Amino acid sequence: VRIHPECYPCFLRQTYNTLKLLTQDEEVQEKLLKEIMGKLAQYKGEDPPPKVSLIVYGTIAQRLGVTDPYREKKLECNRMALELYPRLKEMVRRAPDPLFMAVKVAIVGNIIDFGVGRTFKLETGEALEKLDLVVSHYARFRQDLERARRILYIGDNAGEVVFDRVLIEEMGEKEVIFAVRSVPIINDATLEDAKEAGIDQAARVIESGSWVPGTLLGESTPEFKDLFFNADMVISKGQGNFETLDDAPRAIYFLLRAKCDVVAQLLGVEVGSTLLIKGGLTLAR
Amino acid sequence: VRIHPECYPCFLRQTYNTLKLLTQDEEVQEKLLKEIMGKLAQYKGEDPPPKVSLIVYGTIAQRLGVTDPYREKKLECNRMALELYPRLKEMVRRAPDPLFMAVKVAIVGNIIDFGVGRTFKLETGEALEKLDLVVSHYARFRQDLERARRILYIGDNAGEVVFDRVLIEEMGEKEVIFAVRSVPIINDATLEDAKEAGIDQAARVIESGSWVPGTLLGESTPEFKDLFFNADMVISKGQGNFETLDDAPRAIYFLLRAKCDVVAQLLGVEVGSTLLIKGGLTLAR
Repeated sequence: VRIHPECYPCFLRQTYNTLKLLTQDEEVQEKLLKEIMGKLAQYKGEDPPPKVSLIVYGTIAQRLGVTDPYREKKLECNRMALELYPRLKEMVRRAPDPLFMAVKVAIVGNIIDFGVGRTFKLETGEALEKLDLVVSHYARFRQDLERARRILYIGDNAGEVVFDRVLIEEMGEKEVIFAVRSVPIINDATLEDAKEAGIDQAARVIESGSWVPGTLLGESTPEFKDLFFNADMVISKGQGNFETLDDAPRAIYFLLRAKCDVVAQLLGVEVGSTLLIKGGLTLAR
Repeated sequence: VRIHPECYPCFLRQTYNTLKLLTQDEEVQEKLLKEIMGKLAQYKGEDPPPKVSLIVYGTIAQRLGVTDPYREKKLECNRMALELYPRLKEMVRRAPDPLFMAVKVAIVGNIIDFGVGRTFKLETGEALEKLDLVVSHYARFRQDLERARRILYIGDNAGEVVFDRVLIEEMGEKEVIFAVRSVPIINDATLEDAKEAGIDQAARVIESGSWVPGTLLGESTPEFKDLFFNADMVISKGQGNFETLDDAPRAIYFLLRAKCDVVAQLLGVEVGSTLLIKGGLTLAR
């Protein structure tokens, strides 16, 4: 997905939301907003939005000397999600199709976001039972999963990782590698966050090499690249990974919630829709 | 009200919303968004937001050669509101305190806005009966109104003017002067829009001299200034007029809905709250 005009107002909102978290000094807020507006005004390129968002998060980190502004929020989300974990497991256990319920759990976990989304409310219980996947390639997912031995699962946000764990634990005896960002960016899970969420009890955790809220294949580690091309199956969580991997040269199962107009329109769905789509090379654009 | 850091993301959203209305060409949208970001990044000053918003609306008008981008929307709002008019009159007639109901009608009309607000839903019927004024200086308003002979009523948006008419018709035998913007800005009512709404059947309509979505006293016409200082009572509609007149040197009745965090926080209310406040010189800051 390449940057769209609508991304600029969104970047500015993200800037303000992050600044609010870090300082109450309105002069500092104004100065940084103007610096970032100036840089965005100069930006020339067609990168995916997660890459361009580094103008926002990089400038803030540099000027305020805070490398992980969402650390507290991430801890809180992990804690909240871990509290829900037994209930999620129970729901999966009782479901007529436990794997399908686990897929829905993983997608619902994607609602945890401090980037695009303003606020979020986790859907569990009845809401989760009724949750509708607007696009669902579940039948193919199930089929491919049965045959797969080694699976690369590209994680997204802290907190959400607990929900991913529920899905991974439902996938049977597989070798699952769970990839996270290499540096803190927004509330995306790093190694530390992922381990706090207990994902290492269900998968081997690696860093993808990414320092953006998504996955830039060209800039990822050799280990990640090798896994990406050679795993039997790749599962990608969240909008940021979709925005950066939608035209990657292999089949990928994207589990996401469409969080903004730009991505929703591209996918032909409403904002807020939840999807399981087989994409990558095979995704109709 | 002086500009606040949070205004910048809002200006960018307003830019995009207005551009979307005028062109589907994403290159043009991107170019103008960047030009406006560049200008906002350079802005140095402490003006009220409605004045700074000229960077947005002025640049768009200049580059796209469209002086009244909201013309269609304004017509539509006037039409919608005129259709509601008989029902509003009936509600006022039946109310235990018709003047108070007319005040609520006028405030509800302030929900019509294409600037700050994204979308709006007019509240009529039951919702209007139940509408709560979070701050209400109605008792004083009623008292001052009884004694007043000449009243300056500063209008806000097209469509909303029909709701103002309902209130003015309930104010009894007064000399009411209804002031509108001198040039089109967002969906604010101009002479043309106000007359389409039929306000000239209830008041004398004048231009304030304003070309911003608010009222800059220093830049208004001599006629307006004279009325402003010498009328027995001044009624100001909407947030834009509040942002520009809140520290004006005379008592003013502000009827508004707090449409953004900045103004809501200043007033100590929630976003969306409806208020009738006696302000101006007398407003505690």
